[in-house]
Order: sequence, then C-alpha cells, then structure tokens
Amino acid sequence: MTDKRVYYFGNNKAEGSASDKYLLGGKGANLHEMTNLGLPVPPGFTVTTNVCKEYYEVGERFPAGLEDEMRGALQKMEETLGRKFGDAANPLLVSVRSGAAFSMPGMMDTVLNLGLNDETAKGMAKLTNNERFVYDSYRRFIAMFGDVVLGMKPTSKHEPDPFEVALSKKKRDRGVELDSDLDGAALKELVDEYKALIRELTPHQFPQDPWQQLNAAVGAVFRSWNNPRAQTYRALNGIPSHLGTAVNVQAMVFGNMGNDCATGVAFTRDPSTGEKRFFGEYLINAQGEDVVAGIRTPQTINVSGPGIDPETTLERKMPELYRELDGFRRKLEAHYKDMQDMEFTIQEGRLWLLQTRNGKRTAPAAVRIAVEMVHEGMIDKKTAVMRVSPAQIDQLLHPMLDPKAQRTVVAKGLPASPGAATGRIVFSADEAEARGRKNERVILVRVETSPEDVHGMHYAVGILTSRGGMTSHAAVVARGMGRPCVVGCGEVSIDYASGTMTARGHKLRENDLVTLDGTTGEIMLGEVATVQAGGSASFDELMTWVDEFRRLKVRTNVDTPEDAVIARRFGAEGIGLCRTEHMFFQADRILAMREMILADSETGRRTALAKIAPMQRGDFEGIFKAMDGLPVTIRLLDPPLHEFLPHEEADIRAVADALGRDIQVVRAKKDALHEFNPMLGLRGCRLGIVHAEIYEMQVRAILEAAVHMQKQGVRVIPEIMIPLISEPRELQRLRAVVEKVAKAVFDEQSASVEFRIGTMIEIPRAALLSAEIAKHADFYSFGTNDLTQMTFGLSRDDAGSFLPGYVEQSLLDEDPFQVLDQDGVGALVKFACEHGRKAKPQLKLGICGEHGGEPKSVEFCHRTGLDYVSCSPFRVPIARMAAAQAVLRETK
Amino acid sequence: MTDKRVYYFGNNKAEGSASDKYLLGGKGANLHEMTNLGLPVPPGFTVTTNVCKEYYEVGERFPAGLEDEMRGALQKMEETLGRKFGDAANPLLVSVRSGAAFSMPGMMDTVLNLGLNDETAKGMAKLTNNERFVYDSYRRFIAMFGDVVLGMKPTSKHEPDPFEVALSKKKRDRGVELDSDLDGAALKELVDEYKALIRELTPHQFPQDPWQQLNAAVGAVFRSWNNPRAQTYRALNGIPSHLGTAVNVQAMVFGNMGNDCATGVAFTRDPSTGEKRFFGEYLINAQGEDVVAGIRTPQTINVSGPGIDPETTLERKMPELYRELDGFRRKLEAHYKDMQDMEFTIQEGRLWLLQTRNGKRTAPAAVRIAVEMVHEGMIDKKTAVMRVSPAQIDQLLHPMLDPKAQRTVVAKGLPASPGAATGRIVFSADEAEARGRKNERVILVRVETSPEDVHGMHYAVGILTSRGGMTSHAAVVARGMGRPCVVGCGEVSIDYASGTMTARGHKLRENDLVTLDGTTGEIMLGEVATVQAGGSASFDELMTWVDEFRRLKVRTNVDTPEDAVIARRFGAEGIGLCRTEHMFFQADRILAMREMILADSETGRRTALAKIAPMQRGDFEGIFKAMDGLPVTIRLLDPPLHEFLPHEEADIRAVADALGRDIQVVRAKKDALHEFNPMLGLRGCRLGIVHAEIYEMQVRAILEAAVHMQKQGVRVIPEIMIPLISEPRELQRLRAVVEKVAKAVFDEQSASVEFRIGTMIEIPRAALLSAEIAKHADFYSFGTNDLTQMTFGLSRDDAGSFLPGYVEQSLLDEDPFQVLDQDGVGALVKFACEHGRKAKPQLKLGICGEHGGEPKSVEFCHRTGLDYVSCSPFRVPIARMAAAQAVLRETK
Repeated sequence: MTDKRVYYFGNNKAEGSASDKYLLGGKGANLHEMTNLGLPVPPGFTVTTNVCKEYYEVGERFPAGLEDEMRGALQKMEETLGRKFGDAANPLLVSVRSGAAFSMPGMMDTVLNLGLNDETAKGMAKLTNNERFVYDSYRRFIAMFGDVVLGMKPTSKHEPDPFEVALSKKKRDRGVELDSDLDGAALKELVDEYKALIRELTPHQFPQDPWQQLNAAVGAVFRSWNNPRAQTYRALNGIPSHLGTAVNVQAMVFGNMGNDCATGVAFTRDPSTGEKRFFGEYLINAQGEDVVAGIRTPQTINVSGPGIDPETTLERKMPELYRELDGFRRKLEAHYKDMQDMEFTIQEGRLWLLQTRNGKRTAPAAVRIAVEMVHEGMIDKKTAVMRVSPAQIDQLLHPMLDPKAQRTVVAKGLPASPGAATGRIVFSADEAEARGRKNERVILVRVETSPEDVHGMHYAVGILTSRGGMTSHAAVVARGMGRPCVVGCGEVSIDYASGTMTARGHKLRENDLVTLDGTTGEIMLGEVATVQAGGSASFDELMTWVDEFRRLKVRTNVDTPEDAVIARRFGAEGIGLCRTEHMFFQADRILAMREMILADSETGRRTALAKIAPMQRGDFEGIFKAMDGLPVTIRLLDPPLHEFLPHEEADIRAVADALGRDIQVVRAKKDALHEFNPMLGLRGCRLGIVHAEIYEMQVRAILEAAVHMQKQGVRVIPEIMIPLISEPRELQRLRAVVEKVAKAVFDEQSASVEFRIGTMIEIPRAALLSAEIAKHADFYSFGTNDLTQMTFGLSRDDAGSFLPGYVEQSLLDEDPFQVLDQDGVGALVKFACEHGRKAKPQLKLGICGEHGGEPKSVEFCHRTGLDYVSCSPFRVPIARMAAAQAVLRETK
Repeated sequence: MTDKRVYYFGNNKAEGSASDKYLLGGKGANLHEMTNLGLPVPPGFTVTTNVCKEYYEVGERFPAGLEDEMRGALQKMEETLGRKFGDAANPLLVSVRSGAAFSMPGMMDTVLNLGLNDETAKGMAKLTNNERFVYDSYRRFIAMFGDVVLGMKPTSKHEPDPFEVALSKKKRDRGVELDSDLDGAALKELVDEYKALIRELTPHQFPQDPWQQLNAAVGAVFRSWNNPRAQTYRALNGIPSHLGTAVNVQAMVFGNMGNDCATGVAFTRDPSTGEKRFFGEYLINAQGEDVVAGIRTPQTINVSGPGIDPETTLERKMPELYRELDGFRRKLEAHYKDMQDMEFTIQEGRLWLLQTRNGKRTAPAAVRIAVEMVHEGMIDKKTAVMRVSPAQIDQLLHPMLDPKAQRTVVAKGLPASPGAATGRIVFSADEAEARGRKNERVILVRVETSPEDVHGMHYAVGILTSRGGMTSHAAVVARGMGRPCVVGCGEVSIDYASGTMTARGHKLRENDLVTLDGTTGEIMLGEVATVQAGGSASFDELMTWVDEFRRLKVRTNVDTPEDAVIARRFGAEGIGLCRTEHMFFQADRILAMREMILADSETGRRTALAKIAPMQRGDFEGIFKAMDGLPVTIRLLDPPLHEFLPHEEADIRAVADALGRDIQVVRAKKDALHEFNPMLGLRGCRLGIVHAEIYEMQVRAILEAAVHMQKQGVRVIPEIMIPLISEPRELQRLRAVVEKVAKAVFDEQSASVEFRIGTMIEIPRAALLSAEIAKHADFYSFGTNDLTQMTFGLSRDDAGSFLPGYVEQSLLDEDPFQVLDQDGVGALVKFACEHGRKAKPQLKLGICGEHGGEPKSVEFCHRTGLDYVSCSPFRVPIARMAAAQAVLRETK
C-alpha cells in the first residue's frame, strides 16, 4: 500500500494518470489523465481507494494524517484558482464525488457546492451579483448535505423527502410553478427552513465550518460504498467489495450563472448509429442535472439531423467555444482510442471539461465504431472484437422496441427470447396456427407450452407463458425459432375457459392487442413501435475477424432442414443437437407413434415404427443435405413416451377411435406411463434399453439417409448420440445395437459411411464415471440443461416459484439455467473432460445445453478445452463472438 | 503358474490341501484335506483351475501333456483300488465334477459312472451279479454324456429331454410306473435306444473308449465354466471370470448296490436350531440324488426328535458304521472349526465320505453355533462375529413363513420389508385404521402410498403396493415400522372402485385373506403358517462382541418417542434422522398446517403456525426424553407443501369448509403448488428460505423442548439439520436464522442448551461444494436416497418400470436404492467427506439414507471414515453387525 493518500490535479499537471484506475477510481483517473493532456479540467484532488479501506479498518474514521494531506492539496487548488476555501470575499466551492474502479452509476453519493455557508454565500452573492443563483446553490447544498451526510435521504420512493416538501410548499406559497420561478428572497428563506429541518430531524446542526463540511462529506462517500444498493450492485456485477471507492474533490464550475454559461454532454461519434460525427446536447444557463432530468429540452450542439434549427446550436451561438470543444473531442478520441462521452460546462464564457469516459452505444453503433476505427488505423482487429459485447450481437439480430415509444407495462416476466413483437392474443396453439396461416400477427398466451404447441408457436409472432423458466419448453423452442418470448410471467393470470388474462388489474381478452419485449420481459398494452435491427457490412466484417481469433467451433441445435439453413447462414459449423422427438409430433406421424406406444408386443411396436421409418429417413436426408460437409449430431429419442399421448378426455377418445382401440386401453396406458418425476423417469437411453426397436428404427433411418445422400454426392458426417447415460454398460449395450444396425444397413446398401457414436453427459453419475464411459464413446456432448437440473436438484419447470428470489437475494449469483454454474455443474464438466480425455485422448467434446449460446458459459467451455459449443441458430453469432473474446482475454 | 496340472488324492495321502482352494477349487481342496486327515475318501485326482485357463488360451483344447498326467494319476487310482479303467473283468468307474474356488451350486456340469461301455457293463454285471444296477447306471451315464458333453441338454424347461421321453415310453410299454420298476432287460434295451438317440440327434457316436469318454467329459466341464447360467451367476455374485474351474475325477462308489449299501447327508450340528447334536438323513440302497430329489422319504440317522422310530435309524441298523460316521463328524468339525455338511455313501458295508463343506444354517442356528463354539474354545470372538451375516440378523428380527408350509403364490414383487404377515385385504388407509383398531389383522393394498396413508399403515399387519421401489414411501415407512411389506408388485392390478385386485388370474376382493412375505416378495392366497423368530441369550451375547469391535456408531431414523424407545432397545446410539413432517399429518395438526399453506400473508402463516408450535414442542420433548444422553438430529420441514393438501374433490371441499375458505381458493392453491417434478421443486431448505417463519417455528419448538427437558434433568443433545442444501449461502442464511431464534429462546428461558447446526448432503452440488458448505456446518448427514436419485437421474417412485430389468440384465450390479452405488454416489460422498474435513477437521459425518442399514453400504461408510450410520430401528442390529465385520475384514 502506497503511503500517499491524496493525488492532486490542476494546471495541466496531475499526480495520477488513466492507468491508476484501481488507486484513483475510473472517474478520478480520467480527471488526472485529462489534466495531463492539457485539457481545461477544474483543479482538484483524489483521495485514493486505499484510504477507503483504511477508513473501514480504523472503524469508520479518517486515518491520521489524511486531513493534513487534503489541506495541502486544497491549498494548491486555492493557489491555482486564486480563491480561498471558506473565504467570505472570494470563496472556493468544491464538489465531492465518489469514483470506484468500476462504474457503479447512481449507487454512491455526491455533494455539490460544498464550501457555502452563511458568510461565503453573502460573499458569493456580492461577487456574482446574482443572489438568486447563490441561494439556489446554497439550498441545494444543504439538502444534499442533509440527505447524504446526515442520512435524511428517504429509503423508499414512497417516503417524502422533507426538503422537497418544503420546496413544494414554498412554491405554493409564492404561487409559482417551477423551481426557477422562485426568486432570491424565497430561496434565502428556504435556506433557513432547510437548516431548521436538519436541526429538527437529526441530532446535528448544519455545519458552517467548510472543513467540517468537507470531512463529513468525504466520510459519507466512503460510507456510501457499503450502502445496501451498492452492495447489491457489486454482488450482481461481480465487483469485489474490497476495492473501495476513491473520492474526488474538485473546484465547482457553474453553467447556470447567466447566458454566457451553459452545460452539456457530447459524444465523439453518434452513439445511436456509430456514424463518425460530433453529436451532443446542451442547455444555456443550466446545471448538469437539468440536461439529464429532462425538465428543459436540450438543444443539439450542431446540425446533426433533420428538423434542427441551426440558430439553436452551440456551433452558431458560441462558435469559438464550439470549435474548442470539437478540438477536445478529437484529442480525447485519439488519446483514448474509443468513442468518448464528455461532460462540459461553460462558465462565463470559459469552457471546462468535467468528465470523459467511454461512451455507451447501441449495438449497431458498437459494431460500426469498432470496424471503422480499425479502418482508421486507430485500433487493431483484436481490440475491435473486444469492443462489441456478445449481448450487443444478440440485440443486433432481433427487432427492438423503439426506445422513444410510449408504453403501458402491465406485467413483467423472464426475458426468454429477445426481440419485440406486437399481436393479438390467442390462447391455443391451434388458433395461433389457424390465424397465423392467414398472416395475422398473433401472440400465443399459455400457462406453459408442450411439444403439442410447437406448431402454434411457429405461427405466432411472440409467445407469453405465465409459468416456466429461461430454459422452459417455451423458452427453448422460441429461441430456436428466433421468436420473441416472455416466460414465467407470474403477474399474468390466465383463464382458458373464459378466454381472458389478467395483469396488474387489466383484464385482457382474446383478440386484444399486446406488445411483448423478449429482451426485457415486459408485456405492454396495444402496439408499441419497434425498430428493425439487423446485420450490416460492418457486422459481416467484424464477424470475419471474430472467426480468425476463436478456437472453439460453434454448432447449432436445430431439428429441421429449414432451421439448419438459417443456422448455417449465422455461421454454424455443424449441428450439435438434432432432437428427433419433435419430428414425431407432426400430424402424419403422431398417430403411428401412438400406435407404437399402445402396442402390446414388440411385433406390434415394430409394425408401427415401420410406418414412421420412411418419414424419419426423409427428415434426416433433408438435414444432411442442408449441412453438406459439416457434422450432424442426432440424438436418439429422449422424452418419456407419455409426452406423446393426449391428456384431455376428448383427445383420448379421438386417439382410441383413430386407432380402433378401446378407450379404456388408451386411458390405462396413459395412467401406466404416468410418472411422479418424469425428469428422472423412463426416458433417454432407458427407453432404448427397454424398447430396443425404437432406437433400431432411428439408427436405420439415419444411416439409410446418410448412405442415400452420400450416393447423391452430399458429404455426410453423421454422429449418433445416445442420451441420458448414467452407467457405462448402458452405452456399451446400445453402442452394440447401433453397430449391429449399421452393419446390416451397409450390407444391404453395399455402401458405407463414416459415422461416430457418442453420448450426452447430462447425469452427474455419467460425469463421475467418465473414465469408463469414454471407452465406449467417440464423443461427449454435455447436456448442461439436465446436468444443471440434477446437479442442483432443481426442476427447470418448477424453479420459477423460488429461483428468481434466490438471484434477487444474492443466494445465487445468476440463474444457473441461463449462466452455467461453474462451481458445481462446471466442476462436473471439467472432471468428465479430464477423465474422458485421459481414457481416450481423441475424444471429441462439446456442449449442447442452452448454455452453449451464453457468453460466460462459452468462455468456460473454451477454458475447459471443449472442441465446440452448440446453441440455437440465433445465438450462433453470439457464441462465435464469445469464443473469440475468450481467446483474446486469455492472451491478454 | 505352477507346472503341475494334476493333483492326486487317495490312500490317506493327497498332493493338495484345504488351503489350495484357488488352485483345486473348494470341493477338490476339501477332498484332498479329508484324504490327508485319514478319512475314507474314494481316491481320485483334481485337474487344476489353471488348466481351465490354459484350455481357453489354446482354443478350447487340452494343453499338451495334460492327458499324460491324467493317465499317471488314474494309474495310481487303479493301483489303490485294484481295478482297471476300461477293464472288462474288473472295471474302474469314475465321476467327473466341476469345482470352482467359490461355490456355484448347480451352475456347472457333472458326469457320473464314466468308464462304462458295452464291455465293461457286461463285466460289471458278472462281477456284481446285478444286471439291473449295472444297466441302470449305464443308461444314466449315456444320458448325462449326451446332455453334458454332446450338448443335448434342453435349453428351456419347456423343451423335452429326448432321454426322458424314451424312458417314459419304456415305462408305458412295460406297464410300470416307477423307474425302479424297470428290470435289467428293459434297461438294457434303453441303453441301445439312448445310443441310437445320440447317433440321430448329434453328429457323434457314443464313444466306447473310456479315455475318449474321460477327455470329452473333462473338456465339457471346462466349457461349462462359460455357459450363460454360470456367467450370470458369477456376475451377480461378483466372482471373477478369470478364476476358472477345477475338475475332480474320482472313483465311483455306489450306495445302490443292495441292502448293505446306503447314502446320506449329515450335519455336525443341527442346522435349524444350532443345537450341538448329530443330525442327518439317509436311505438304504439308494443314490445320492434320491435323497435330494425327494422321491423316497429319507430316514434320520439317529433319534433326533419326537416321533422317530428308533428301528429306522442308521444308528440301530448299522451301529458300527454309525459310530464310525460319528467319529468322522467330530474329527471334521474339530478340524474345520465350523459346522460341517457331510455327504457319505456306504457301499457293501464300507463307509465312504464324498464331500464335506461348511453347512448352511438358519439365522438362529448361525448365532447359536458361533456363540457356543466360542464357549467351547473352538473359535475366538472375532471369528464368531464374522460367522453371522447381517442378513441373518435381519431374519432373526422378523417373523418368518414356516418353510414347510404349503402355499399358493399369486404374485411376486420387491421384498421391501422382511417378515411375513397374514390378514384381510383392505384398500384404504382409513379402513385399515378402523379395522386395525378393532384388533383385526388387515393387509393394506394400495397402488402406492403417500404420507396420508401412514396412519393406516400403522394399523395394518402388512402392506402391498403395485408400484414403487425398495425405497418408495411404502417401503421406507414399512421398514421403519418393522411391518412386512411388498412393493412394486406389477403382477397385481388394483381396482379401487370395485374393491378388487387381480393377480395371475385370481380375482381377490376386499376382506379376502392373503399372506405376504416381505423377505421374498411373494403374495399367497389364504393363511400360510409362520414361525416367530427373535432374539436369544446367544444373540445378546454375540451383539456385545459386535459392539466391542466396531468403530462406526449406529443411530436410528425415527419420528416418534415410541419408535425411539424401540430403537434404543435395538442398540441405537442416538437419532440420526427425525423427520418432522410426519408430525404434521396427525389429525390435530393437519388442519392448522393447511391453514398455514392457504394463508395469504406471512402474518396469516405465523398465526397458523402458532397453533402447531405447542404440539411440535410436545413431540420433541418426548423424543428428547426417550433419547436421554444421546444425540437427536432433527430435520426441519422437507416435503413440498402440496403434499399436505388433499387431492380429491370431496376432500378439497371438506378442507375449504373446515377452514371457512372458498373452495376455489383451495383448488387454486393446490394448482399453484403443483409441480412437474416435485422431487426437484420447492422443498427442503428452499421452503425455509421462502417462508422463514416455518423454520423459525420449528427451531423454537426444538429448543424450547430442549430447555424444558434439560430443566427436568434430561441430558439433551439436539442437532438441527437443514435439508436440501445446494449452495453454501443457503446454509449460511439459515444458520443465521437458527442462531437468531436460539438466542431469543435462551434469553426468554434464562437457560441454554448446547446444540449443533448441520445439513443434509443430498444434492450432488452440495457434495461438490463441500469445502465451502463445511464452513457453515457442524455436521453433515448424507441423505443417500435423494443423492442417489439425483446422481443417477432416477426417481425412486418411477424407476420400478425399468430398474429391476437393469439388474436382471446386469446393466447394474444392484438396485442403487438398496445398495449404495460406490462408483458414483459413493464417489460424491467420499469427495464431500475429504473436502469437508479438510475445511473443518472436527466436522461430524453420518449417513441417514436407507443405505445406513445395508451391510455393504455400512462397510463403505466405515472405509470412508464416517462417524455414524443411521437406519430404521429394525435395521440397527444389522448395521451394528456390518460395522463390526467391516473392522474385522479390514484387519484381516
């Protein structure tokens, strides 16, 4: 720990620099950096983050010697500015702001105008000849001091702030509407009233001594590091608590002293589009917060778009200062080599920079700026790739709500599949299909969805469920389809019988128009305007760089040739998971499937399966063709058979009639197949063991399709995947079945194809016995959805009742169905990889759970040495980006 | 590998001994040992197990030199007996028998009377003057040769054996009923017909050359080592396949050559009671298989019980030989230091011993023999403890079916809780209770049971379910109660509506009398006589030795003071698992529980809980008192709340009425609480997180009870156990809740008790994060039931549809709910122990899953270094025995 506690900046010379982020905080480090660059930054000093730690170590008190160092730095400020702290004639006022190494916007506290007291206020009023300005500043300071330092800030939105109450009363008494309508005398009265409030509501007096004010404010900022909001924010964003915050004490400058004053925010490039042009907004005679709070509408600094009156721009009104600002803009961007978000204030004709930081930007802007900066020679490709977050890639590929549009939110659920959609409510999949086919835009609203709803989901523009989590059926299928989807929306209560849903007191009926935002999870009344995002030349170029860097392959989870084509367009390098069960739900097969389930003998089952076989073969042919030259991993039947039987009495009757069976037989079968915990029941390879004929039919269909397509010149690379292995002998047995069928098919066809046999690792025991299982497997695909369920003892369909609360209360860092749990599930994945590779070095390793498209999880897969990740088509570009960034982060 | 392939025995001198079990097989080693002891064993030789391996290595052929060694040994036999192999005048006949290191009864093949051919048969007939005897032996030899050597043995019971067919035909033709009624001429004809059958049905001729016969028979025995039956038996019994079998070639002796001949089986002590007296059965003029097959009723060798005519005994009929036999009996038992099962044959007034081995015995006999042999100075206590298997301890504590009783088995399920019971069928728990209260003996028959059935199970004498596995609710509760129980009996089809059950075509109605055997899983019509087993002075003495040796403590899983008293009597050293949920099902509490569940607010829930609190406190007081001085681990509420709500419409209405709530509310709550996979849902500590008030009430009840009982002089050692932890922060949070309540209670009561806070490890992730979880735990209790379910991805309630098949087909060695899966689940247990102890060396470790009473699992717990196991009261003695044997096996 360095001994120096206070770092001075001012007069083009600072004791710190941008590289001192951990010591001086992000904001502080940039103030020092800008000062060194010769930019006009009001002088000040930074109390280091180490002092924050000391503060807590010695029991929330100033460590000895700190005040002396602060006094020394303040003296330098006084010398630089020719004003004196606490001097009645020419007082120096300061701001006191927090500033940690990582941005925690709005979490910690700030005090402005510090140094004002009854004496200095009088002096200032004389000096500026602007009593109104001075007492407005003074009353604001007292209020901030009361709130921040003396703990008078209300803890909830519902409690009134006593200072606000007094202000409102004053306006009423004076018969005015706006704060700015109050004159100097009224504000002077308010100052006294504010001081009285402090006396009444706290055991303290408002201190007149500026040093007492300053010490108290610095201590308050340190304490704000540990306020509950800040703690929660850090927990959520993975910011270590031991870092502490720095405190920046800086000379005040004022944009609200008259018409030669102004304040504004500017971006070095357009943050919406990324276009290389100066973009900013400002207000004459205003304070920084006025721009943000939106009480007055700010003007643009230049003619940056249609409909702007040139006369209102800073460029026209203060051309010299504008030109100066533009110069700073170029200097800052060239220096930081990234788009900057600058705060400036003009006080009495002099331009000050108060802050610079990397600017927030939309996804399209992020891509364009990164790519253009490479073209400009400003950054290299690696830096460009690191500049665009995977989440931004996600945004790019889905329509978004127009951020400016008005909306009435009536419910909020889990943001399961990004993008926005507006449509009319329907409550059944059949209705959704019927109306979707007529090109009507419908939102399918269900308590939850099942495979029987897939056809309706396909025809809906958006999906809403009141139950289920981020990997619920609805969520998975919707993401696969790229359909906006909100799930687990407990605020919505659905009544199928009456065809209504209720949300926050609004009763909505079938056919009512709603909008849902799958990016935020919000449900809104009526139509809300959307903007279409999408690819661009910049995007394409960026993605070629991404592919240059990454080591991890990215495959996709698709079940149909059509989706395979889409996924390939998104850059998929094969299919990592082709689920065969969805194929059985199509109208022409479900009956044969049900016949198979109801059959009393193996012969009966084989007869029924023989009807499905040619259709399955056709499915696989289409997929092999779409994936010409790329590997296709096909999972054999996985779900429990009861999923294929109807549950409603009418449907049961229909099935019985169609198959010419007694309804009692169908009902009895349904009951016999019922399971208490289907997740842990007769499914996956257990079906293949009990009814080998099902897997035999599927393997035959796959390999006949492969041989057939190969004869037509398609390069087929089939990988047959056996699900739900928990014991090596299961895989050994089923591998033999697959090989037996393969031999038969190749003999019959007088041809053969290369193929692999592998397994999902989705049961903890399979991971634990990896060394044995690897002996019978050519590849592993980690089914991290089920592996998460079993490792956590957590059903994804049921966890909605408590899992969100767990994350809110920081009992878990994240929903483990969204972000792979590296401590538990990840430990099993790692163990299985290490032991599997030791037993069989050429073992191919991949992941096909939903985590395969989630950036942090992709990075984990990279570090763990997997060969590929596989995810839904729309997440393929996200995974590519995450995989590239994982490499770059590693080499850094 | 030794070079010597053939070991001779004969004339009181053998080349091997009892210690050569692996080389000569168990049977062979004992033949050598008996020969060396000077006992009259027919001479012979043993071909070693190594030759079996060689036989397979060289491609199922005799290794070079083997025949020469065999010829040498046979020559010695000829010299000893003065007969010659293949000699027409005075032929030597031999038996050829398998004999592996471990007994595999009936799995491999035997050929008798080898050496007979057309010539030697004629010679024998002249020599013995008994043509009938000789041709009967000859035709039996040909049939065995055909079956065993030439592969004519039918592969299923439904196929006819051609030799049996010919024999039957012969009897019909001659108009006789018994084999023994056929005369020499008829048997001579049969010999020719048998030879013709071999010619017709195989490509071979029956060989006349005795050496060709012998070589073929020895090879056939080697091949029988790998027949499917033998392979399956080895897989099931964990016998390594590489051991191979030895072959014993021994001179034939005949007990069926006339009235100076006999054959019999004798035990050195009574195998039923263990009493120290000579016990055996014999037949004059008979073959060994006649005694076994039960065609003739054998006589006892002495007056060993009431109703025996002394004139029929061997003791009276052949007093010299009996005395000789009794001498051998003493010699053998003194030599082997265990009760022996001897086979003897008397040929023409001369006594031969054909086999000795440790005798099978009933459980009471095992205990008595072991204890008395210690008293006799024959063995030490350690040996005595190793002589009684834990399964025998189990048998001792439950009534058993009388082995001699007639029975009609109509179904077979899983043997879930041992013991036999006869009673009248009832189909509902209420009915069971109503009639049980009137002291009627009823069998409760359900598809499955739930906590709502517990009161009825308590009043039933036995329980039968058509669904569920060995750890299903019915099985667990029944074992806990010591009630005989058969579960997962799929052959039984139950129709509640008509009050009938169907099994193997029998339709049974309510009130019909049935008997079930929880030790075998069989269901029988009507009453079948039972015998009461139980403790004894010998048993008590043995168990004190057991307790001297074991390190592992044994606790019990009980929920009531009554059961606690029983468990203590069985030797329980504390409670390892007290489930609190069963307490809520009692009539006086379930309503308050339901009121709590239906409450709309925390306040409402607290009000309802306050009604339950005093009753809970009373429960715990009783348990603390019963367990004075011993630790009591109490698990906080674990099952999902929906288990406490009724499911039938009428019951829902009743609850709504009782609580004065709208039926819609009750129904809606039931629906809202419904879960797809309740095993993985909102239960265990998740309930405690979501509704802290429930756990607060329980902790308060526990500690108030503890303080109260302590004031009354009871030594209380409460351990509060939090279930279903998957994340360290859950335990951290709930530990704080427990400590807060404890402080409040101790302050209020001005007293405190020592107590521990711990957790179940029952979710894989908890085991994986043990190093972190241990920081917040004073103890771990492994809940291996749930840990098995999640590690295997296997619901114990649903696994019945395929798990038995897995075990039958050797896809799994055992049902993992019965025997702890050491490879997977055990690996997690071990990992959690190691990492937990590393983080906290004083961490107490136990297991409270059903495996805690299963011997192999107990041994695993011992080896893994757990502090205790906990199991249902009736399994406590089993666990004590297994724990002691684990120590003794380790030191061996």
